[in-house]
Amino acid sequence: MAQCVFCKVAAWETPSQRVYEDDKFIAFLDINPVNFGHTLIIPREHYANFIETPEDVLSEMTKLAKKIAPAILEAMKAPAFNITFNSGQEAGQAVHHIHMHIIPRYADDGHKQWHGRDRYAEGEMGATAKKIKELIK
Amino acid sequence: MAQCVFCKVAAWETPSQRVYEDDKFIAFLDINPVNFGHTLIIPREHYANFIETPEDVLSEMTKLAKKIAPAILEAMKAPAFNITFNSGQEAGQAVHHIHMHIIPRYADDGHKQWHGRDRYAEGEMGATAKKIKELIK
Repeated sequence: MAQCVFCKVAAWETPSQRVYEDDKFIAFLDINPVNFGHTLIIPREHYANFIETPEDVLSEMTKLAKKIAPAILEAMKAPAFNITFNSGQEAGQAVHHIHMHIIPRYADDGHKQWHGRDRYAEGEMGATAKKIKELIK
Repeated sequence: MAQCVFCKVAAWETPSQRVYEDDKFIAFLDINPVNFGHTLIIPREHYANFIETPEDVLSEMTKLAKKIAPAILEAMKAPAFNITFNSGQEAGQAVHHIHMHIIPRYADDGHKQWHGRDRYAEGEMGATAKKIKELIK
């Protein structure tokens, strides 16, 4: 897609600092990192989000993360990391070409996890589980 | 592992509201949800974190997310979602049995994304990419 920022990265129309690439995927540094070493994995082919990406592509992205994350930890001397897909604008997805974030993390780095705030009322949890269960295709 | 909270969930020693299960995986509602419908996927077998989990297990968890996430969106009337693995205590991993979070999200639900705060100094981004690239095995 001509106007997609990550399609431009894939085509080298936009410069990037790549840490890995093969015929199907590219991993490169986020230019606005949560912590230094924050890396994005994208497929060269354009898919808008997690829902629209074929499962074999998602599966390969996950395998790539397992290959790349240890190198990020070692290079950045980080003890831990987050792997995240944000799917949809309301979930924080800013570029609508699927990408996986790998974010190296440190104790007390100031990035707080979201903590559970909602509490299910009595019976509501079971009803919610039942509803989801019935909708799985 | 006898003391692991999620091994107990898998063995029904701890009750859970399950939305999916098969011979290898279980998906159930987080008891302390970020938003209602917040679901966890775990393998029945115990692996401490993302790094220690075999790639085929990670790959299957990702495929399961693709199956389950649309049902969560539909059940919870949510337009978007986050998928996250927190690997390591410093990354917010509280239970050391690998689990994937699927969190339904809404506009203005109060869960802010982490924004990039760090800025690479000149030349630092290239040096960081080079270091990671060299460490990928």
